[in-house]
Amino acid sequence: MLIVKKFGGTSVADKERIFNVARRCIEDYKKGNDVVVVLSAMGKFTDVLVSQAKDINPNPPKREMDMLYTIGEQQSVALMAMAMDSLGVPAVSLNAFQVKMHTTSAYGNARLTKMDTERIRNELDSRKIVLVTGFQGVDKSDNYTTLGRGGSDTTAVALAAALHADACEIYTDVEGVYTADPRYVKNAKKLDAITYDEMLDLASLGAGVLHNRSVEMAKRYGVQLVVRSSLSLAEGTVVKEAVDMEGMLISGVASDKNTARIAVIGLEDQPGVAFKLFDHLARHNINVDIILQSVGRDGTKDISFTVARDDLEEAVATIERHRNTSLKCDKVDVEENVAKVSIVGAGMMTNPGVAANMFAALYDAGINIKMISTSEIRVTVLIDAQYTEKAMNAVHDKFF
Amino acid sequence: MLIVKKFGGTSVADKERIFNVARRCIEDYKKGNDVVVVLSAMGKFTDVLVSQAKDINPNPPKREMDMLYTIGEQQSVALMAMAMDSLGVPAVSLNAFQVKMHTTSAYGNARLTKMDTERIRNELDSRKIVLVTGFQGVDKSDNYTTLGRGGSDTTAVALAAALHADACEIYTDVEGVYTADPRYVKNAKKLDAITYDEMLDLASLGAGVLHNRSVEMAKRYGVQLVVRSSLSLAEGTVVKEAVDMEGMLISGVASDKNTARIAVIGLEDQPGVAFKLFDHLARHNINVDIILQSVGRDGTKDISFTVARDDLEEAVATIERHRNTSLKCDKVDVEENVAKVSIVGAGMMTNPGVAANMFAALYDAGINIKMISTSEIRVTVLIDAQYTEKAMNAVHDKFF
Repeated sequence: MLIVKKFGGTSVADKERIFNVARRCIEDYKKGNDVVVVLSAMGKFTDVLVSQAKDINPNPPKREMDMLYTIGEQQSVALMAMAMDSLGVPAVSLNAFQVKMHTTSAYGNARLTKMDTERIRNELDSRKIVLVTGFQGVDKSDNYTTLGRGGSDTTAVALAAALHADACEIYTDVEGVYTADPRYVKNAKKLDAITYDEMLDLASLGAGVLHNRSVEMAKRYGVQLVVRSSLSLAEGTVVKEAVDMEGMLISGVASDKNTARIAVIGLEDQPGVAFKLFDHLARHNINVDIILQSVGRDGTKDISFTVARDDLEEAVATIERHRNTSLKCDKVDVEENVAKVSIVGAGMMTNPGVAANMFAALYDAGINIKMISTSEIRVTVLIDAQYTEKAMNAVHDKFF
Repeated sequence: MLIVKKFGGTSVADKERIFNVARRCIEDYKKGNDVVVVLSAMGKFTDVLVSQAKDINPNPPKREMDMLYTIGEQQSVALMAMAMDSLGVPAVSLNAFQVKMHTTSAYGNARLTKMDTERIRNELDSRKIVLVTGFQGVDKSDNYTTLGRGGSDTTAVALAAALHADACEIYTDVEGVYTADPRYVKNAKKLDAITYDEMLDLASLGAGVLHNRSVEMAKRYGVQLVVRSSLSLAEGTVVKEAVDMEGMLISGVASDKNTARIAVIGLEDQPGVAFKLFDHLARHNINVDIILQSVGRDGTKDISFTVARDDLEEAVATIERHRNTSLKCDKVDVEENVAKVSIVGAGMMTNPGVAANMFAALYDAGINIKMISTSEIRVTVLIDAQYTEKAMNAVHDKFF
């Protein structure tokens, strides 16, 4: 059996945890399995690198930032190989150049394009545990790239797909996917299984367990994922195509505080205005989430939308740069202290009352809704960030 | 003009020094020169990596150690590129994969085999300062390698040779090459120029300014080097093929405390014993320096030699492993607290009294000589380490 295992930064934060991960991998290896391990940078090392960079250049070139970031995972895999060697098991660490992990050139947010598994296969054939740097890639001009937040999950899924792995295990600091974040919602329950689509919505809505790009890729290539804890032996949650819902309406409640709302007030009411606005943002790799358009006064229109808080500054700057040309408007208004709260579940499609129940729960809790967005299996509301936990508990209690 | 500049770890140890280096490079760039900069890992970062590794595995696999080491220079070049960008000058950082710095597979002590300058040329043509990771290479199977101590100097010289650079400047924390280490010998004088051969002997004898492999390479490819300070504008010392000696007998006094003596006592007096001994050591990449062989009692022989102190443990272990087979002997004796003191100078070849003068100076200072080794332009003695400075001053005063 070929198993791909991915461990995040907290799982390799210090010597003790590195050995803990090493032992878990060796256990599978000694049963005769081929084991490929994807690692992130140790603990807070990425944060250290960011502050080093910002200290030198508050706005560092993205190519150089990726050149700096990529040392983090290389450190993790090298130290892990040393740990496994000290436990008597041969291991080899490989970075993005060595596994030929090709990506687009979008520094900081690159997409995997293709990879070459020959080196990994050869190392596995010689009975080594193969340790691969997560998060990083190489573009066609041999520049380092990174895959954006949660990119190591994507690396693991891509490897599992390319190697036709029998299992792809994503280790994290929780025991699986919960109906809500157990840190904030006391009645949260662990799910045994969840569909790709539900997981996608949970991931993109801040449940924080799996990065959405990794789930998209898992869905596309049919890679069955298991999300489980690196600290316990609990079974975890399986993420797959179809799950027997047994009448469960929703599978989870998620929140995301890494969000900010931008309102562009008084845009000219002409065709193409929305296109131009979001095109400018897309060119800067800024992902836009909930969008709301309303008609303003005097034949103008207002467009509100949310972005990740990290992107807020650049999004506003981008709009401001075009205010005198293609994006004439009266005002750009920003609200930072907002959060998204969402319910997700395939059962929703056939139960029209779900959204109403959610709104009722928020109304009963006295929480004002600023924006609403829905899809077939998801309802998201934007609220004041200070009420996030209160809202999650209220909504969770309503459904579970 | 194409200039290759190399800065060591202390020159990029913190933000202030990084900007100091950036400004020096930019000065040359703004005069219209093409500038290629080779950097080492920041300050003591390599030491941090070593202790991280040893904490996990006291005897880490060398391949993985190199995988870990190489992150150090990558950090330096990425941060330097950010510093230059913040000063308004475009720069690009390149690691060993990106410049295709090919080496042998001798991890920790690899030799450069070939390199491809296309990427660097392209970046220079687009008027970027090119920042290259020193010390590191890539073997033919895409594994990271490192060039051993002082390897960044070798990287710089190799780049200068491959790019047919007009100048190769090695920046260090002293103003050039001195007749002796000015920290220990108060009358030491800076040399304006020195030959490759003299520099070679000084480097291999612990003068510490340039790594011998870099000087060998400079000599082979006729790369004229300048050794100068990163902290002052002083002219430095030129290292080249021939220097007008003006009758100067010796050009320098050097010492090296990173040395240990091993004596293998009571070896069988058979042909091939010395070959076997040094072959075993060579297979572990242990460089042996002064060698002395004497006839022992009962038809045996004793072989004494010095190694770098870092290699002592492995050298002894290697000999012990073969004591019952190919290296039968009575005793392996080790002396750790020894130092080499040497005089170097092309003038020596034609002046037979030089060695005698050195021995006289040591005799007058009451210092006992343990071993002697000579070449055409060098005399080295092994003494008790505690007398190193006393010996250097005594010898220096005798000749200058």
